[in-house]
Amino acid sequence: MAKIDDLRKIATRLRVHSLRMTTAAGSGHPTTCLSAADLAACLFFGEMRWNTRRPDDPANDEFVLSKGHAAPLLWAVYAEAGIMPMRDLLDLRKITSDLEGHPTPRMKWVKAATGSLGQGLSVGVGMALAQRLEKSPGRTFVLLGDGECAEGAVWEAAASAADRGLRNLCAIVDVNRLGQSGPTMHQHDLGTLARKFKAFGWEAVAIDGHHIGKILEALGRAGKNGKPTAILAKTYKGKGVSFIEDRDGWHGKPLKADELAKALGEIGCLPDVDARKLIRKPRPFKPRRRRAAFDFPRTGYKDRTATRLAYGNALLSLGKINTSVVALDGDVKNSTYADKFFAAFPERSCQSFIAEQNMIGMGMGLAAKGYLPFMASFAAFLTRAHDQVRMAAYSFSNVKLCGSHVGVSIGEDGPSQMGLEDLAMFRPIPGCLVLYPSDAVSAEACVATMAAHKGMAYLRTTRPATPLLYGSTEPFPAGGSKVLRRADNDGVTVIAAGITVHEALKAWEDLAKEGLGFRLIDAYSIEPLDVEGIRREVAETGGKAVVVEDHFAAGGLGEAVAGALAGRAELRHLCVRELPRSGKPDELLERYGIGAGHVARAVREMLGR
Amino acid sequence: MAKIDDLRKIATRLRVHSLRMTTAAGSGHPTTCLSAADLAACLFFGEMRWNTRRPDDPANDEFVLSKGHAAPLLWAVYAEAGIMPMRDLLDLRKITSDLEGHPTPRMKWVKAATGSLGQGLSVGVGMALAQRLEKSPGRTFVLLGDGECAEGAVWEAAASAADRGLRNLCAIVDVNRLGQSGPTMHQHDLGTLARKFKAFGWEAVAIDGHHIGKILEALGRAGKNGKPTAILAKTYKGKGVSFIEDRDGWHGKPLKADELAKALGEIGCLPDVDARKLIRKPRPFKPRRRRAAFDFPRTGYKDRTATRLAYGNALLSLGKINTSVVALDGDVKNSTYADKFFAAFPERSCQSFIAEQNMIGMGMGLAAKGYLPFMASFAAFLTRAHDQVRMAAYSFSNVKLCGSHVGVSIGEDGPSQMGLEDLAMFRPIPGCLVLYPSDAVSAEACVATMAAHKGMAYLRTTRPATPLLYGSTEPFPAGGSKVLRRADNDGVTVIAAGITVHEALKAWEDLAKEGLGFRLIDAYSIEPLDVEGIRREVAETGGKAVVVEDHFAAGGLGEAVAGALAGRAELRHLCVRELPRSGKPDELLERYGIGAGHVARAVREMLGR
Repeated sequence: MAKIDDLRKIATRLRVHSLRMTTAAGSGHPTTCLSAADLAACLFFGEMRWNTRRPDDPANDEFVLSKGHAAPLLWAVYAEAGIMPMRDLLDLRKITSDLEGHPTPRMKWVKAATGSLGQGLSVGVGMALAQRLEKSPGRTFVLLGDGECAEGAVWEAAASAADRGLRNLCAIVDVNRLGQSGPTMHQHDLGTLARKFKAFGWEAVAIDGHHIGKILEALGRAGKNGKPTAILAKTYKGKGVSFIEDRDGWHGKPLKADELAKALGEIGCLPDVDARKLIRKPRPFKPRRRRAAFDFPRTGYKDRTATRLAYGNALLSLGKINTSVVALDGDVKNSTYADKFFAAFPERSCQSFIAEQNMIGMGMGLAAKGYLPFMASFAAFLTRAHDQVRMAAYSFSNVKLCGSHVGVSIGEDGPSQMGLEDLAMFRPIPGCLVLYPSDAVSAEACVATMAAHKGMAYLRTTRPATPLLYGSTEPFPAGGSKVLRRADNDGVTVIAAGITVHEALKAWEDLAKEGLGFRLIDAYSIEPLDVEGIRREVAETGGKAVVVEDHFAAGGLGEAVAGALAGRAELRHLCVRELPRSGKPDELLERYGIGAGHVARAVREMLGR
Repeated sequence: MAKIDDLRKIATRLRVHSLRMTTAAGSGHPTTCLSAADLAACLFFGEMRWNTRRPDDPANDEFVLSKGHAAPLLWAVYAEAGIMPMRDLLDLRKITSDLEGHPTPRMKWVKAATGSLGQGLSVGVGMALAQRLEKSPGRTFVLLGDGECAEGAVWEAAASAADRGLRNLCAIVDVNRLGQSGPTMHQHDLGTLARKFKAFGWEAVAIDGHHIGKILEALGRAGKNGKPTAILAKTYKGKGVSFIEDRDGWHGKPLKADELAKALGEIGCLPDVDARKLIRKPRPFKPRRRRAAFDFPRTGYKDRTATRLAYGNALLSLGKINTSVVALDGDVKNSTYADKFFAAFPERSCQSFIAEQNMIGMGMGLAAKGYLPFMASFAAFLTRAHDQVRMAAYSFSNVKLCGSHVGVSIGEDGPSQMGLEDLAMFRPIPGCLVLYPSDAVSAEACVATMAAHKGMAYLRTTRPATPLLYGSTEPFPAGGSKVLRRADNDGVTVIAAGITVHEALKAWEDLAKEGLGFRLIDAYSIEPLDVEGIRREVAETGGKAVVVEDHFAAGGLGEAVAGALAGRAELRHLCVRELPRSGKPDELLERYGIGAGHVARAVREMLGR
């Protein structure tokens, strides 16, 4: 009973903090903090086992605030836990504070940025997977809102957690009935939400989310029957303050000064309780050390090989020397060739089915726990997870992605399967390395480079087999490029990557027969681009350049080069400028203006021949 | 009984066609055609009511092949229905044929391109909504695979269909147990799939998907109890051919010539039946004419106004003169200001909740039926639907999107809410108009421009109120730009859009005090860019230009201009170059290098002052 009393007091303190913080900031979401305050108090101070001195303690229970707009509540929890001074709370949303409007890992207890709704459960699945992989006693708790349960990503995550029997995962849904612009789809119909979770293989229990005893009881039973557990908590937005409680129109609105005074009058002053004393310590646990090497022995290639196949080989080799590596694949592992890793290391492999959003989310969770996830699908289908990719970058997440089957060179499958916008998607992502190898040797080297890179990296691979261009010890560092061909008096530089390197090579041979030539750069590092190298080579060829790429016009290699060469060179850009169709790869390269013939013509024209 | 016999014969013909076509093409997915052949035969020739002469007959039952890789089956259906000659089938996947590897609307009976899985049900929801809106007797059928049911988008669609009580929608899931790289999550466990659909508010019935009688019975009962219906059909991939039936490893593989001969030996020759005679005609129906005007009366603005508010006003005005306009919004209508339309036209409004993928999918369905959908969310959250946006473009879909709250100028909510990659996402989309107005007047004009544009259009709106810049009759056509300021001997052109136009104006005023100046272009049309206009103005200012934009470096206005000016001008690019944080809008504009002070400094430096 004393514990229940204390938790109730803590919940009150969390409410007071949340109201004060958002009023001080002049913006924020106090009502959604108030609905979840009792849940947070019970979770952090009644159930979770965590070492408040070490966010990276592998025995910790983990927490993800999927409903990221309740950030003030989370900051209040950490202040109550003694992790930061109470006075810091009033710096909420200031440019000088790490207590941002939505959680980001600038605050070290946050493992994944949230605020784009419906993503947290996937991250939780990844964390729970990591805990099971390393045999940690820790569990993972995810706090969701009911509004975000409309996101399909939640159900991708739910299905995958049940499929893996993640009993160490618990979702708490703060069913406060009101979204931003009106009531949620199911409002307080907890039965429907419970049926959904049960149908997706979860244990589901509906409770009064403001009843401390019931919350503790539900938390205490979570996972006991071997399934992931969803606690559906009926709550009221703005709970505890009469004039905002359960009222529409109060989403994302702080109280004005006079309203705050009135609200605090209702709630009362900060009750006296030392929340720190209630926190349960984690069970002692020492994980096995994982090996973290990156320079794997390369495959000896002898014949033309697809870069996607080289990705598979490299991932397998990397997995042998680095036990942090885990592989995820969206039911295309026999096309991306992640299947080689899957066969060798089933325990570190994750069939992610056709659910790319959840795949990236799981990767974020695994990375947050120190694993090194490599995730693959067709580049076209990674667009499905653009929002998750964005949030992974905002989480400084050390995740690696591979997009295969890029461009019109895939051939007959048609435009829906062609990755023609992936460079435009990945290039803006802050801190993301973007590599696009042209042969098997460089593809393997790029896998080593991306593995060693701290942060997100994206590898673009090609469907057809391509000839070998490089010796097996050639390095391919981030930000580099390779000069593949020169010619006497070369007066144009052609900049290509991936499949178009080979088209350019054909053009070089053809032009050589006419006594013409050009300099050819393999710009395998799309981001960062080798700006200095490209500028130097282009300057040496009289300030004339042609870019040729198997990608739409905007956002790819062509515009990257245009930015790098602005004011320095005359530039031609060969790329896919219309919606392509099914056909043979060579036909399509020619039809859409990026084949050898087009490269030769562009060079001739720039040379005035 | 004769009907059942005929349908069985038709199914056999569809199987033979599918096998022959894919072998002739040398690629494709025959086994997934064979599993669904009985379903397709019953659906098109036993249940659906459609006018085979008019794909746009408003009384037609509609069909979406969500499992797009079964395209050969669909082409075979249309050949059997007499829509095209049988011999055309053997041109599958040729560059000269509209029978592509996955369905696209190049073939006029296809209303939405598919092939990126899990999207078809949302399109179906949109079509069923359209049918209800226009009071058509038509229904909508969607054929899904079991593998794609792992996609969250399927469950977004399922929830929204039930929420709207779409009894005229029927999903048929071809549960063939095998995905591309192995078994699906639930294999032949129809019970779990049925529980999921039921939990999401659907009627669900499990049947033997190769039993003609059972299929007809299930189709005949669909919708009878007032709910959308899911028919879960247990089938076998490769059904009918012993050596591929229910075998793993046969996804996306055509039979070789000798295998085809063996298979046809098992199936038998083409049975004699005239499928055309079985097709049921639609019930007579004349829809009400919709008004389609675009030039709505503009709001008279007097004071600074946010462009997002102007979007709301314009949408309302457009809705009054154009009864095809429907509005969708992802539970942020009080932020995007779509709420004005919602209040005035509830019957043409669709609360799409926090499920952006389904929102875009529904829009595609509505557009396919002749409606003009305007869909809004925060720009950041439209990344969630990148794959749907891509497929909408591949569908030549006439959909309009509005992304609000772009860039660091949103302020304290932090990076998860800032659209900083939306231009890079929309610019590569084939045929997509991208507009980014700087004041309320131009925002309204841009809404008129995007409404009149045939195809996809994207409007980027800003959170804070901005001063008025234009007279109310100023036109803002696609591909235009505006010269807002000149100066005596102006030696630099500054190219801005949206919020940065106002920063540049402040810089202009500041520099004017020092006797300096520049030319200022409002590049409101990001795609297509006013290449000629920008080249001309920059040439007149001595070939010097500064671009300033509230967007990440890659893929936005800066690179668009770099491409346009390549070789013609010296260029500086001010943009957001790192992961931003929470703070006040003005602080953030300054900190991330795109505020007035930065513009002035860049101009000074380029002028050598």
